[in-house]
Amino acid sequence: MTKGRVEAFSDGVLAVAITLLVLDLKFDSEPGHASVAHQISKNWPSYLAYAVSFIVIGVIWVNHHALFSLIAHVDRVFLFQNLMLLMFVTTMPFTTSTLAKFLSAGGADARWAVVLYGVSNIGMSWGYFAMLHRMIHHGLLRTPVDAATGRAALIRFGIGNIAYPVATGIGLLWPPSMLITTGSMAVYYMFEQTQLLPGGDD
Amino acid sequence: MTKGRVEAFSDGVLAVAITLLVLDLKFDSEPGHASVAHQISKNWPSYLAYAVSFIVIGVIWVNHHALFSLIAHVDRVFLFQNLMLLMFVTTMPFTTSTLAKFLSAGGADARWAVVLYGVSNIGMSWGYFAMLHRMIHHGLLRTPVDAATGRAALIRFGIGNIAYPVATGIGLLWPPSMLITTGSMAVYYMFEQTQLLPGGDD
Amino acid sequence: MTKGRVEAFSDGVLAVAITLLVLDLKFDSEPGHASVAHQISKNWPSYLAYAVSFIVIGVIWVNHHALFSLIAHVDRVFLFQNLMLLMFVTTMPFTTSTLAKFLSAGGADARWAVVLYGVSNIGMSWGYFAMLHRMIHHGLLRTPVDAATGRAALIRFGIGNIAYPVATGIGLLWPPSMLITTGSMAVYYMFEQTQLLPGGDD
Amino acid sequence: MTKGRVEAFSDGVLAVAITLLVLDLKFDSEPGHASVAHQISKNWPSYLAYAVSFIVIGVIWVNHHALFSLIAHVDRVFLFQNLMLLMFVTTMPFTTSTLAKFLSAGGADARWAVVLYGVSNIGMSWGYFAMLHRMIHHGLLRTPVDAATGRAALIRFGIGNIAYPVATGIGLLWPPSMLITTGSMAVYYMFEQTQLLPGGDD
Repeated sequence: MTKGRVEAFSDGVLAVAITLLVLDLKFDSEPGHASVAHQISKNWPSYLAYAVSFIVIGVIWVNHHALFSLIAHVDRVFLFQNLMLLMFVTTMPFTTSTLAKFLSAGGADARWAVVLYGVSNIGMSWGYFAMLHRMIHHGLLRTPVDAATGRAALIRFGIGNIAYPVATGIGLLWPPSMLITTGSMAVYYMFEQTQLLPGGDD
Repeated sequence: MTKGRVEAFSDGVLAVAITLLVLDLKFDSEPGHASVAHQISKNWPSYLAYAVSFIVIGVIWVNHHALFSLIAHVDRVFLFQNLMLLMFVTTMPFTTSTLAKFLSAGGADARWAVVLYGVSNIGMSWGYFAMLHRMIHHGLLRTPVDAATGRAALIRFGIGNIAYPVATGIGLLWPPSMLITTGSMAVYYMFEQTQLLPGGDD
Repeated sequence: MTKGRVEAFSDGVLAVAITLLVLDLKFDSEPGHASVAHQISKNWPSYLAYAVSFIVIGVIWVNHHALFSLIAHVDRVFLFQNLMLLMFVTTMPFTTSTLAKFLSAGGADARWAVVLYGVSNIGMSWGYFAMLHRMIHHGLLRTPVDAATGRAALIRFGIGNIAYPVATGIGLLWPPSMLITTGSMAVYYMFEQTQLLPGGDD
Repeated sequence: MTKGRVEAFSDGVLAVAITLLVLDLKFDSEPGHASVAHQISKNWPSYLAYAVSFIVIGVIWVNHHALFSLIAHVDRVFLFQNLMLLMFVTTMPFTTSTLAKFLSAGGADARWAVVLYGVSNIGMSWGYFAMLHRMIHHGLLRTPVDAATGRAALIRFGIGNIAYPVATGIGLLWPPSMLITTGSMAVYYMFEQTQLLPGGDD
């Protein structure tokens, strides 16, 4: 099976999901509502969460693009791993808006929102790791890598598998930290961590 | 006519439809509403229906990808069959959210939702079957198959034509069963049932 | 300029617009609202309008696909003509839901909705005609056609330029006719009317 | 890295964002609300803002298409510059609907909406400029250009970097001007301003 349509479908889902994030942004102009200045000061989590989640999905796309450039062909298991990754990506507009809403509202329920947002991130991290693992160990790579290189790639790329659950745990103690830790992880993944790309530019 | 744009348009519609499913997920954070724990216990059908419908559309995409890889070219009738398939796919966000809402609300009206959700699934199944039939019998395949192979592919792939109406009938008796039977059918179609692909990996 | 990305962007817009139509479909399950049977009998224009508009956009895509297969390259004017076509296509979810809503509500205001829906269709028809005209008369075709063939194509394809304003006029007298006439025109365009395609299959 | 998928993902985001603009258009048909004629006269900013923003995003796509046709390959920094451009594009449905709403409502808060809409436009302008700068100065072009040509392209294309902040300033004095100045800039960019394209057709 060729990989072209997998890229096209993934691009489509990522593009829709990243754009749907905007549906959570809104201002109220009806008479009798709070002034815009007050709305901004109350709804800042929405704007910050929008930016963080946009970058998270954007980085996922950049790495998806980079990893697929290493692949010669795909198999059916890999397609379903990719689908699982996309499933967690599509939950982002929901978990992002939930996190923003509960951070704005304050109160104990914000912890539920942290857990939900954490599940999105953990699911994407694990899904990605499964794909990278299969690429390396089931002969999907265009140029096979030796065991040490493959192992190193999995370790460096797989840090999120542990970091996201830890971030969620911290978020349970102090909910706003969730946006900080997630944003930091996105910065980590902005750099090409697998070291599998020949001559990366960063 | 070449098939590239049919794939691109289909990928687009499938990607949008699968991502729009998320619009039905939401929590209420306004003061005076039920706690999150209570909302989760009440709205579980939304989360389950989201997962089932995501997998259903995902599997449709995987099989669309696999079947199109067998095709040499498309004709105008086939384009409209594909369009009919896509039309039933795009109803999924609506019929999924309706099913989830009525299962949460309970009551006799849940049967209407079961029928609607059933229509989505029956329409997709029949549309797919019509496409496979035309592929095999109107010379669209890259490598023509003998009569016995084509017949076997249609029978194995066409099981949904009967299974979905039966599942809808059972759903009229016990509405929550609709998600179980639909999910089971998705698992069935996760495996390549046409046996037309050379060297499938599953 | 090559035409690949024009097709990709157009496919994207058409795919999103055709899928957004579904956002207008909904049922109310809250206690105290009308029964589903009553909602269906009241909201039938929504379901019919959904089907008609889905077919309209679907047929636009099929013809877009067919016409672009005749094109060798595109120019900047053609890009903006295509953009104008897409702009009227993206109004369809709005004008479709408006028409459905006002047909359900009844009353004199339904005429406004007819005009809006008519503008969508007239805009798409004129946009398409402009594109076909430019293709034929500005050397964008892969295989240039003689004057008589080009003229015949423009006449047969351009019937909508007159038919849609007429349909809108009839709709002002009897609003529900709008869905019937638009649906009929979609059937007309289901068949390849330019006769520019070698060996069409219909 | 090849540029094909960057185009595909960008096309997807641009297509979704341009189509989501329509979600802000709506009429109220409920009994007791204002007549359609009155709604139109009150909501004209929505229709005008829709048209202006559609053209803005459409022109961005046309230029994206034109610039990418000059590129031989992309690097990771360029991918993130493109992502930043897309991030500001995806804010357009939000800032457009906010501007329309506050222009309809009137009052001092319209200035906030002007600033928001200005930020969208300034962000897109700066993002685009950064991409063009990198294309020219980091060897991404298929055919390198001499210093004078590169400089001229950056100046002509970079006019928006100054024009959009100025337009926002004027908008603070008279909010409705924002739609006029933005529309005018879109017309400016309809013409190919980089002069890097061989034999443009406009």
